Amino acid sequence: MPAEAFPLTAGRLPPARGVRYLCAMADNAAPQPPVEFETHPSRYRHWKLAFEGSIARLSMAVREDGGLRPGYQLKLNSYDLGVDIELADAVQRIRFEHPEVGAVVVDSALQRLFCAGANIFMLASSAHPFKVNFCKFTNETRLAIEDASAHSGIKWIAALNGTASGGGYELALAADEILLIDDGSSAVSLPEVALLGVLPGTGGLTRVVDKRKVRRDLADVFSALPEGVKGKRAVDWRLVDRVIPRSHFDQDVRDRALELAALTDRKADGTARELEPLQPEVTPDRRQYRFVTLDLDAARRLATLTVRAPAEPAGADAFPWHLRAFRELDDALLHLRLNHLDVGTVLLKTVGDPALVLGHDRWLAGRRDWLGREILGQVRRTLKRLDLTAKTLYAVIEPGSCFTGSLFEMALAADRSYLLASEKAATVELSPLSAGALPMSNGLTRLQTRFLHDPAQVERVLAHRGSFAPAAALEAGLVTFAPDAIDWDDELRLALEERASLSPDALTGMEANLRFAGPETLETKIFGRLSAWQNWIFQRPNAVGEKGALALYGRKGQRPEFDWRRT
Amino acid sequence: MPAEAFPLTAGRLPPARGVRYLCAMADNAAPQPPVEFETHPSRYRHWKLAFEGSIARLSMAVREDGGLRPGYQLKLNSYDLGVDIELADAVQRIRFEHPEVGAVVVDSALQRLFCAGANIFMLASSAHPFKVNFCKFTNETRLAIEDASAHSGIKWIAALNGTASGGGYELALAADEILLIDDGSSAVSLPEVALLGVLPGTGGLTRVVDKRKVRRDLADVFSALPEGVKGKRAVDWRLVDRVIPRSHFDQDVRDRALELAALTDRKADGTARELEPLQPEVTPDRRQYRFVTLDLDAARRLATLTVRAPAEPAGADAFPWHLRAFRELDDALLHLRLNHLDVGTVLLKTVGDPALVLGHDRWLAGRRDWLGREILGQVRRTLKRLDLTAKTLYAVIEPGSCFTGSLFEMALAADRSYLLASEKAATVELSPLSAGALPMSNGLTRLQTRFLHDPAQVERVLAHRGSFAPAAALEAGLVTFAPDAIDWDDELRLALEERASLSPDALTGMEANLRFAGPETLETKIFGRLSAWQNWIFQRPNAVGEKGALALYGRKGQRPEFDWRRT
Repeated sequence: MPAEAFPLTAGRLPPARGVRYLCAMADNAAPQPPVEFETHPSRYRHWKLAFEGSIARLSMAVREDGGLRPGYQLKLNSYDLGVDIELADAVQRIRFEHPEVGAVVVDSALQRLFCAGANIFMLASSAHPFKVNFCKFTNETRLAIEDASAHSGIKWIAALNGTASGGGYELALAADEILLIDDGSSAVSLPEVALLGVLPGTGGLTRVVDKRKVRRDLADVFSALPEGVKGKRAVDWRLVDRVIPRSHFDQDVRDRALELAALTDRKADGTARELEPLQPEVTPDRRQYRFVTLDLDAARRLATLTVRAPAEPAGADAFPWHLRAFRELDDALLHLRLNHLDVGTVLLKTVGDPALVLGHDRWLAGRRDWLGREILGQVRRTLKRLDLTAKTLYAVIEPGSCFTGSLFEMALAADRSYLLASEKAATVELSPLSAGALPMSNGLTRLQTRFLHDPAQVERVLAHRGSFAPAAALEAGLVTFAPDAIDWDDELRLALEERASLSPDALTGMEANLRFAGPETLETKIFGRLSAWQNWIFQRPNAVGEKGALALYGRKGQRPEFDWRRT
Repeated sequence: MPAEAFPLTAGRLPPARGVRYLCAMADNAAPQPPVEFETHPSRYRHWKLAFEGSIARLSMAVREDGGLRPGYQLKLNSYDLGVDIELADAVQRIRFEHPEVGAVVVDSALQRLFCAGANIFMLASSAHPFKVNFCKFTNETRLAIEDASAHSGIKWIAALNGTASGGGYELALAADEILLIDDGSSAVSLPEVALLGVLPGTGGLTRVVDKRKVRRDLADVFSALPEGVKGKRAVDWRLVDRVIPRSHFDQDVRDRALELAALTDRKADGTARELEPLQPEVTPDRRQYRFVTLDLDAARRLATLTVRAPAEPAGADAFPWHLRAFRELDDALLHLRLNHLDVGTVLLKTVGDPALVLGHDRWLAGRRDWLGREILGQVRRTLKRLDLTAKTLYAVIEPGSCFTGSLFEMALAADRSYLLASEKAATVELSPLSAGALPMSNGLTRLQTRFLHDPAQVERVLAHRGSFAPAAALEAGLVTFAPDAIDWDDELRLALEERASLSPDALTGMEANLRFAGPETLETKIFGRLSAWQNWIFQRPNAVGEKGALALYGRKGQRPEFDWRRT
């Protein structure tokens, strides 16, 4: 294997000057400029996105000096959050702007190297909360690829024209098919355990045994083998689907992409529009989008997310309310996670005419075209992002709010909901979108998860016509508390103060365990089991201590020193 | 609530002298005397075990000065590992020695206090690997209670004659029914998040939402409420099954226990025998039981577990081979976990006549009596304990070995297996016990988990008559590698050296993720998702740092200081 195709062998990279103690320092480092999540293909620095009939080609060509933050070089198609933000954008563009596309080929613009995974020096110099939230975002992006395959008729081929190691192979694992060049050297590998003393951070272990169903003992050998597996053995072990000689690799990839694209039910019907830029107005305490407002109260470590109902009935707008509002909500959640780490609690509010929300929900539920499906997918994925946000979520349901259907899902996603039982009562209401269109990561709807103890209650509340008055909503179990106007302020204030006093780590762990009752899926395994273990390891001296494997990576002649006790 | 019934409010306990920095120090503390796991009701210090016809009564009466290690007092029915070892023994005794019992009442010998949970000062002064392995053992003990309910016709009532907080309520959650005294003060609670900045460590969060199916928002309120919930609300929220006034609490508990006991299919048929003591011969490098040998190679951080085949055909012995051998294996695994933390890799070997193992497996598979069911349960639980042991497991299959049926499950539980393909070939063979009698925690057999990619292969190997020769075993996917005699030594040596060089934390995380492909259950959720989060939190400065909540617990006037960043 040529040196440039396998970057993760210690000593082959230039020594990481000053990285050694950064991992500890980073937790107290000065604030970084905020991360922005909006981009556009015209501004991509790390990916080339090209279209040829029914095929899109997404080629990774990471700019070494294009890191989101200073201090590391993105050599060998290694990535940081900035690279992944472009990938997430590309997935969105293909879904919404290119209905003619039925298959996507993900490859590399480099020779003999597909992708070296997440940049180690970026990881080693990142604070723990950033590292964890970075991994969460990359996980969601890979799940968005699988979501597009499952729901949108877009099939994905990882065309490994060179070695895919670590996060590079994990990106390939998100595709429907992995085609590996058979050139005697290109391999797939998960070298994290062996070289860095951490786990693959983007679902690799789970996808190897649960998606590709690699036999667990072979998965063990593979996951401890830094050089990885290539050629026929990679196929025999189910790590890739095919190996193809260099001479006809490009042709075979293209042929297969055309075959897969031919299966799609997408249709270029002239309704596709370029996604609008969100362009929020930003002040230090507020991020104001068209339908979403994010208010920040730094002193209380509190944020308020308010979603406004549509202003007009459904039907006319080229950019329907759901698409715009949930894209804004998605962006706001990412800002909360990455740029406002100190915020511990998020109040979820809505404002506007419930009848208009209901009308838009009915309109969306009734659409049968590709674009309707995509808009619904945006709502579904944004709500999953909400479920997976490591902040306490309290829904606050006041008069003038519109917790109806798709917006009521926000209240169901919340850890608790408070409904003000006043004279001019706030109400909640279900819609056709409440019945199954917006499942959680565990495969159940939020109503099913809520009423695990009494599945018939799901049917009962769905059969209810009209809105639920406060007492009825409480009785039906749709809200947690319904204080009257006299108690409202005190009760809410106390709930917020109590929550704000608790350990943020204990709350993250508690919420992650209580939100996902019921069945487990690949997604919940990745975010629950795998991520929790990775977070633990990311915190351990054996990885990030002065002599830890991650901290010492790339420092010639220095080997990590471990506390050998098994935990 | 009286002070003595609610110990977890800071300031109500005497200050913990010297505990403050122990949690950091403990990781480098001097070696402790080994923990012993064998005990006998005649030696119990913390539990009273009494029998009345079809009911057993297990009353918690923890001796304050009876801690396993010095430095903490077991006040208020709080427990340490020593208390839980007795509980685990009591569960075993009831199963094996009291077939007349169909229901067990677990209560407290104290007034107005059921159990205060794991002792905080013990936790705060324990090293991280000990803490994690302690929690794993207590989890397994609670699962053994549920296993006895599911498989052995023994129903469990937690009779909360006082407050059950933290691990006390988690113990109650393992029972089939929770009856709480209604005295105006006794409550159930999970105060860990609010008071200690950690998670309940014994499955509490999972059982609340997944077993008792408490609505997730109510579970959120409950799990953040240090004083807990009592009376009617505890029933309404599904936290307990009934509340009963003090005046007829004892009578109602007894009546209900009799009702449940009447449902059992257990029978006192005169075959019950007191469990033999194991009495291994112990030297620094070896633990020698009758059928199991544990050899320790401290320099290589390597252990070898060898299980011997029965010496005689099945049928005559009052203590059949399976019962004895798997009890020994169970004990050896606990020693490995708690007393040999540095051991990273365990070689699994067998020796003896495969035909005798097969004979015993067939004999056990054919038994239809309560004792056969119990012996099978011992095998099942021991193999689960093996699956859940955080050490690398390599099965070594050499000539003279007997990896047949129940013993071949050890090879299937291993992360890898090495079979020596010599002239006098070692073989592997399935038995009637391979087909479903010994499921893993995920609910699948080890063969089903292994062949997730090809369920028909399970049927094919089960249909195979006789043993598999090396080439056939390799071809069928039953072993990982089958080197010949020339390569054998080198290959095994290299595999062990490579493994021994890797980060023990990364290996623990990797193995925990690769071993449990397929469906998830309450058990796998507890050991995967919940424990991984707890381990993470147990390692975080917000819990165990100098100003962490766990470290400062009980120190009057000192409040924890948190790094507020959400992760």
